[in-house]
Order: sequence, then structure tokens, then C-alpha cells
Amino acid sequence: MDLDSERRRLLARDARWAALSSQGQDVEGILAFWTDDAQVYPPGMPPVSGKPALRRYVEGALAIPGFHMTWTSSEAHLSPDGRLAYLLSTNGVTMPGPDGKPVTTRGRAVTVWRREPDGEWRCAIDMWNDEPAEP
Amino acid sequence: MDLDSERRRLLARDARWAALSSQGQDVEGILAFWTDDAQVYPPGMPPVSGKPALRRYVEGALAIPGFHMTWTSSEAHLSPDGRLAYLLSTNGVTMPGPDGKPVTTRGRAVTVWRREPDGEWRCAIDMWNDEPAEP
Repeated sequence: MDLDSERRRLLARDARWAALSSQGQDVEGILAFWTDDAQVYPPGMPPVSGKPALRRYVEGALAIPGFHMTWTSSEAHLSPDGRLAYLLSTNGVTMPGPDGKPVTTRGRAVTVWRREPDGEWRCAIDMWNDEPAEP
Repeated sequence: MDLDSERRRLLARDARWAALSSQGQDVEGILAFWTDDAQVYPPGMPPVSGKPALRRYVEGALAIPGFHMTWTSSEAHLSPDGRLAYLLSTNGVTMPGPDGKPVTTRGRAVTVWRREPDGEWRCAIDMWNDEPAEP
């Protein structure tokens, strides 16, 4: 197990996922990055668990006029056997505010990834919260 | 590596940490459950990184009159080599509200743990956000 190369591969995969999510077109492509049992915890909302619920969640977000999501992961930490990992990220979600003007909420996330039997990394847990308010 | 027994050991250790934190007396005892490079992400606040910053954070929280924190972890998932793990938890933080009456904020957390060279599990990442508001 070449952990350094596996770490780079995971970060590259996450960056492809971020690019696809930012484009906001390919729902099935976006869904393919999660494990079948993935759990996503949007702040202040019920957890979203499993592919059917995640599909509704992604479709709902992409249907919001002006919705845009981006993230960048800076660190990937892998178990020594290269089977489990976590990434630290910063993200931004843009949506129209009460006056219709776009508002971007910035946060930081931890995602947990499993390398599944087919050798591919998929995200099993996604938890984030808000950055401090701008001074 | 008996993963089932390691998983139970980790959950028991987390439960001891929660009990100690809930008692709110033993700052050094609470700190001992984090790795030296641990990163904690309180919602809407800057990340708290490393033991000196965590000591100030814990001391500051415990100095708030009426402060009380509890959590319960329901799931522990370990890498096959038993070196990295994540736990899913629900938590509650109680503090006096604007009128002085105690207010409890309920959330859910993901914590990431490493089994360090001495064989002990310690928490490296702690991220949580709020539950949905009560209807």
C-alpha cells in the first residue's frame, strides 16, 4: 500500500466530485461518489441517509434557482491499511437570500471515506457547520 | 485484530469521556482523550487546534455558570486494521439563555479517532452541527 499515492488519488477524486457538484448538472454522477449507506448531515436539517434520499436531496438543491455549491479539501488522512480516510474541507453554498440577492454561507466539513471492495473511494459521512460570521 | 472487541472498547472509552465531560471538573482528564494535534470545530466559531488551545476552550466552557455538556455515541466504525475509526453521536449543550434560564442546544457529531502507538484510542477530529429546530 503506497499511502502517499493513495492519498493523492483520494484528493483528486474529491476534487472531481467538487467540480461535478459545482457544475450542478449530473445528478447520477454526483451520487456515484457516495457509499450506498452514506449519511449526510446538513446543519439544522434531518440527516439524509442512503441513495434514494440523497437523490431527492441533490435534485432538490439543484432545483433552487441560483443554487451553487463549492468545496476544497486541504487534507486527507488515511488508515495505515488504506481502507478508511477522512478529509478536511472548506465549502460555500450560495442561494438567493430573502431579498432575492445571492447569499453565500461558508463552512468547514469533515468527510469520511471508505475504499470499497472494487478499489474505489466513496464518501460515507459528510458533516459540516458554519464558519464564524464575518466581523 | 478482534475488531468487535476493539469497537466495544472504543465506545466504552468514549462513554467514559462523556461522563467526565458531563461532570465538568477534571480538565486534564478531559484533555487526555484528544490527540496532541486534535481539531475541534464548534459551529460558528474558529477551529480549536492542539492541546493548549483545547485547554483554554474547555476551561472557558466550564467557567460558564450553568454550562453542561452531554453526548452519547451510537455507532463506531473502524478501519479493518483497527487504527482509525469514526463515531456518530448526539449531543446537548446547556447554557443560560438571554433571560438567564437554561437553554439546551441539541446536535449530532462525527468524531474521528486514532489508535496511537501506545495502543490507546484518542479523538483527532470533532465536528458537530445543530439538530432541526423543534416544530
